[in-house]
Amino acid sequence: MITLFDLVVSGDRRPSPFCWRTKLALRHKGLVYVAEPVGFSEKDKIAFAGSTTLPVIRDDGRGGHAVKDSWQIALWLDEAYPARPLFGSASATSFARFVNGWADTAVHGALFPLVVADIHAHARPQDQAYFRDSREKRLGRPLEAAQAAARDGGLAVLRSTLEPVRRQLAGQPFISGDAPAYPDYILAGTVLWPRTISPLRLLDPADPLNAWLDRMLDLFDGLGRKAPTASS
Amino acid sequence: MITLFDLVVSGDRRPSPFCWRTKLALRHKGLVYVAEPVGFSEKDKIAFAGSTTLPVIRDDGRGGHAVKDSWQIALWLDEAYPARPLFGSASATSFARFVNGWADTAVHGALFPLVVADIHAHARPQDQAYFRDSREKRLGRPLEAAQAAARDGGLAVLRSTLEPVRRQLAGQPFISGDAPAYPDYILAGTVLWPRTISPLRLLDPADPLNAWLDRMLDLFDGLGRKAPTASS
Repeated sequence: MITLFDLVVSGDRRPSPFCWRTKLALRHKGLVYVAEPVGFSEKDKIAFAGSTTLPVIRDDGRGGHAVKDSWQIALWLDEAYPARPLFGSASATSFARFVNGWADTAVHGALFPLVVADIHAHARPQDQAYFRDSREKRLGRPLEAAQAAARDGGLAVLRSTLEPVRRQLAGQPFISGDAPAYPDYILAGTVLWPRTISPLRLLDPADPLNAWLDRMLDLFDGLGRKAPTASS
Repeated sequence: MITLFDLVVSGDRRPSPFCWRTKLALRHKGLVYVAEPVGFSEKDKIAFAGSTTLPVIRDDGRGGHAVKDSWQIALWLDEAYPARPLFGSASATSFARFVNGWADTAVHGALFPLVVADIHAHARPQDQAYFRDSREKRLGRPLEAAQAAARDGGLAVLRSTLEPVRRQLAGQPFISGDAPAYPDYILAGTVLWPRTISPLRLLDPADPLNAWLDRMLDLFDGLGRKAPTASS
């Protein structure tokens, strides 16, 4: 049994794009896990793994081996459990590594300020001061001011960062090819993030990426689709 | 023998990032080609292929079969000449397709306005009117105004678009993995573009991408390194 330490906010919502990557990866591999909810300020729960960020996994079937960081977790899962690979070849690993770096910089760089005050509003009351303090240090201004500034044109910028994916999906059903694999889980986590804590509609209703997103939300018995949303 | 129809500007410089992709791909596969120079306005030279843009290849060993568009050319080369694959697997093709879409939108979108007046200045005299007219329609203002506006902060934006590559190269010597393949040729073409026609230094001297670029310029007997630059 694997324990996934999973970011939790109000109403048991699970917003973290990085934890989503790991959840989708675990399900892809057919591995059973239990999700242990962790609030933004509960660093003590993951100190055993030498981590201050989520996700962390602990594999109780392997002596409680702990792995932190969604990318390292994905690599470790394919090594420890070779069946149903997330990558499957050196080239597929390079591909996923590139998409991981692209999502974390181009896409999240545009998305984070668009929803940062919404994340705060959804954080558990006991986590809000920690979240505000740490994120305002990063942004250099109040969360609400950062979000308001980002909403002035920032959504169009964010949507433009997804253009490589639109081109990709013009020729194939998934970012990874004919079937979903880790590159798809990376971007699905990104889309599930605002869906969970913000009224922001990341994709325009006419965006061809909606067809891909529908396929992603349906995977694993509707894991993404059934997850609590900002309005649920 | 393969003929590559290759964009030419002043002093026999060859700036097109798309033609560079094809040149590097042909060399990767060990295929011999002759480059037929084509000016911006010489659409008649490539009309036989139903194309108005470069590159175009014509394979005289295969009945003069013509292929247009660097991406379609790469796919066709691997199909027609399976040895020394540019891709080698469905996953590698997906990877390259993603990098192709990313370079064409995120990177070229940031780079093109930074060098557009420099391209014009290097175009052959007989091509300058065509280049100015067609590109000013696209940009909606004079080339010089577009370039001056882009230079105000645009170089930092361009360099930030390369962040996924910096992360990639922190873990491996080439974008593609342990050896160069089509994803590397895509970005090498992008870097060779300003190098050929602009004093703009795309990479900061301290950028870790310079080590990768050095490796790329050395490939195929220094094909990229020996090519005429803006200042040569």
